[in-house]
Amino acid sequence: MSSQERSVSLFFKILTPQDAKATFFSRWQGEPGPHEVLPLEAALGRVVATDIVVPRNLPSFPKSTVDGYAVRAADTFGASEGLPSYLTVIGEVQIGRAPAFRVAPGEAAWIPTGGMLPEGADAVVMVEHTEPLDERTVEVKRPVGPGENVIRPGEDFPEGAVAIGRGRKLTPQDIGLLAALGITEVPVVVPPKVAILSTGDEIVPPHVEPGPAQTRDINTYTLGAMVREEGGLPVLYGIVPDAYEPLLDALRRAHEECDLILVSGGSSVGPRDLVARAIHALGEPGVLVHGVSMKPGKPTVLAVANGTPVVGLPGHPTTVMIVFHVFVREILWRLLGLRPRPRPPVIARMGRRIASAPGREDYLRVALEEREGELWAIPLLGKSGLLSTMVKADGLVRIPLEREGLEVGDPVEVWLW
Amino acid sequence: MSSQERSVSLFFKILTPQDAKATFFSRWQGEPGPHEVLPLEAALGRVVATDIVVPRNLPSFPKSTVDGYAVRAADTFGASEGLPSYLTVIGEVQIGRAPAFRVAPGEAAWIPTGGMLPEGADAVVMVEHTEPLDERTVEVKRPVGPGENVIRPGEDFPEGAVAIGRGRKLTPQDIGLLAALGITEVPVVVPPKVAILSTGDEIVPPHVEPGPAQTRDINTYTLGAMVREEGGLPVLYGIVPDAYEPLLDALRRAHEECDLILVSGGSSVGPRDLVARAIHALGEPGVLVHGVSMKPGKPTVLAVANGTPVVGLPGHPTTVMIVFHVFVREILWRLLGLRPRPRPPVIARMGRRIASAPGREDYLRVALEEREGELWAIPLLGKSGLLSTMVKADGLVRIPLEREGLEVGDPVEVWLW
Repeated sequence: MSSQERSVSLFFKILTPQDAKATFFSRWQGEPGPHEVLPLEAALGRVVATDIVVPRNLPSFPKSTVDGYAVRAADTFGASEGLPSYLTVIGEVQIGRAPAFRVAPGEAAWIPTGGMLPEGADAVVMVEHTEPLDERTVEVKRPVGPGENVIRPGEDFPEGAVAIGRGRKLTPQDIGLLAALGITEVPVVVPPKVAILSTGDEIVPPHVEPGPAQTRDINTYTLGAMVREEGGLPVLYGIVPDAYEPLLDALRRAHEECDLILVSGGSSVGPRDLVARAIHALGEPGVLVHGVSMKPGKPTVLAVANGTPVVGLPGHPTTVMIVFHVFVREILWRLLGLRPRPRPPVIARMGRRIASAPGREDYLRVALEEREGELWAIPLLGKSGLLSTMVKADGLVRIPLEREGLEVGDPVEVWLW
Repeated sequence: MSSQERSVSLFFKILTPQDAKATFFSRWQGEPGPHEVLPLEAALGRVVATDIVVPRNLPSFPKSTVDGYAVRAADTFGASEGLPSYLTVIGEVQIGRAPAFRVAPGEAAWIPTGGMLPEGADAVVMVEHTEPLDERTVEVKRPVGPGENVIRPGEDFPEGAVAIGRGRKLTPQDIGLLAALGITEVPVVVPPKVAILSTGDEIVPPHVEPGPAQTRDINTYTLGAMVREEGGLPVLYGIVPDAYEPLLDALRRAHEECDLILVSGGSSVGPRDLVARAIHALGEPGVLVHGVSMKPGKPTVLAVANGTPVVGLPGHPTTVMIVFHVFVREILWRLLGLRPRPRPPVIARMGRRIASAPGREDYLRVALEEREGELWAIPLLGKSGLLSTMVKADGLVRIPLEREGLEVGDPVEVWLW
């Protein structure tokens, strides 16, 4: 055993998930990479690279929010059903056109929703509160205050304000707002490249018919899809033989080409723990965390190699998803500069008693069931490594470190996936 | 007014949102369109077109879920720390290879996680419960039952079972499962084409600098993005003049080319109600719903024209999003054949007293705030049509028909968007 190899075994010191994160993020903060400019129609779901500033007041003109009459509010003060104000109708505002007239005291003009308030007017009376008396006169039966039923220029978004802050993942409503502001080219963060390597001598690619004791590669595809969902670009390095040199070679290529490296399989402790050693040899400071007090996911490796984050994920496909959820997503968010929106968990009742060792976080796959109007989280138990539990699950329940388990009916937070 | 035009005004009879849906879906059930075959890497988020059947037992061989010794369970019965069983180690299972030996009574073989159980053996003892005595003998200190720590062939997914049912939107875990089954080409539903038309004489495209009383087209882009998020293909018809003939012409083109038509703007009641009339003229049975007891969204139009669903959405961009959420999504799901997974709402406390007229469903845009560990839904009030309320909102709260409002602290369901 070389000194290099020996030094790694020192790292197998179990940290809590929270301490593991703190240790990792104290050595790697991460920054978003370069940006690219996309047409508005292609920007949905992408992360905005720079604050987007309102180029011009929105709306740019005083705009009626209702169908009715543009008036001077003072002319309606005290108006009632019994004692209406009588105003002279001097014209009609055409939608999309600046009115060519001015509303003087005692006057009113018909205005449609979205129409531009004529000069002189400072409010709009809803049509429901008026009665035409003749061609030239309208009765107003309720008073309006100045500004009522009108959006002032810039009231929605004032010129110079930040419309959409850097780090926001663009939603449909954001896309609508950008259209409103005339921003048809959007600066967004280039998706970080995420290297995906699978190890294991029993693994064959999905298009290959496995031999008697072989299994197809699952993790490359699950991880690739999860990376894509979070906004990264998966770069597949395929199946790497379970041997130190080929593994280190593949990691070196990935290190040159990608912003984050994910290696699944082979990170358990013991003589076969080649992955942690190869990761440690990749660059400074090397392995920061090897061993986390969570189940599943205990042999997780968190490392930094000359500025590039590297995560070693235990090989069970079900575990891979949980380790991605707990550690990898946040790394990706930082590479995207993403400020995640609040996505609170769903609250459900625990459908079954589950024991858990204190001092360890347990992650349970659960299916949601509605029973008599209440939501229940039913744990999908079964041998570790059963894909069926992963596919049938609607989400994850975490049993915190300090809990010794959950009783039937206990409220739990479910993170949907 | 022609008889055609007159007949439409009859439809402005307010229905509850539930009755509006029932009326519409009694006349249109919807079916998924054709499917296409995609490579596995491109199938994430797409809807599976046919049941996917397990072609071969998964796993295909009896597989160890732990590192340990393959044994005959009967040889371990009664084993304990004080009185271990002594077994003769006859070999080592290599990962990825069928063992060339057989385990006879009194024998054991080293087996790694994922290794194939040798013939004769029926269980695996975890390495933690064993002690090597010498090169050829191992002490077993706990009994195992037959099948323990082994996944039987087909135990995860038996040959011939449905692995992924028709109508499922593919998740990362599904993609992993398909890889495991060797299904690298996936039949998925072709995204339905959704025509998007905006009406309004004051509207200009986003790349145009609006004149003094003009506004840029927002709805085309918000709707386009929402359609995309739900799995449809938006087809943009741009801005249609607010006049009967051009509107009908544009609708006819959309009707020829698309599977669903969305028209925003101009569907309010009154002399300007061209949209409902043009939709009604498009085909049989025509307008089924015009007027829904919800706020916003009252002038919503639901129609079917010779088998194609058509929705008229009131023009306020904020309203468009809500009408999409309440009516359009479900239409799209049917065109995709999608069976949506349970996505329960988030529960929060109401941050402000809100009055609501009974007999009307109110939809509030809310921002989520955490206060002392509790989640609060803060309504974003303001003049109708303010985009800022739409962009700042995390989701929607519905005030049901029968409620007269909500008090501060009332629990509410928040549908995130």
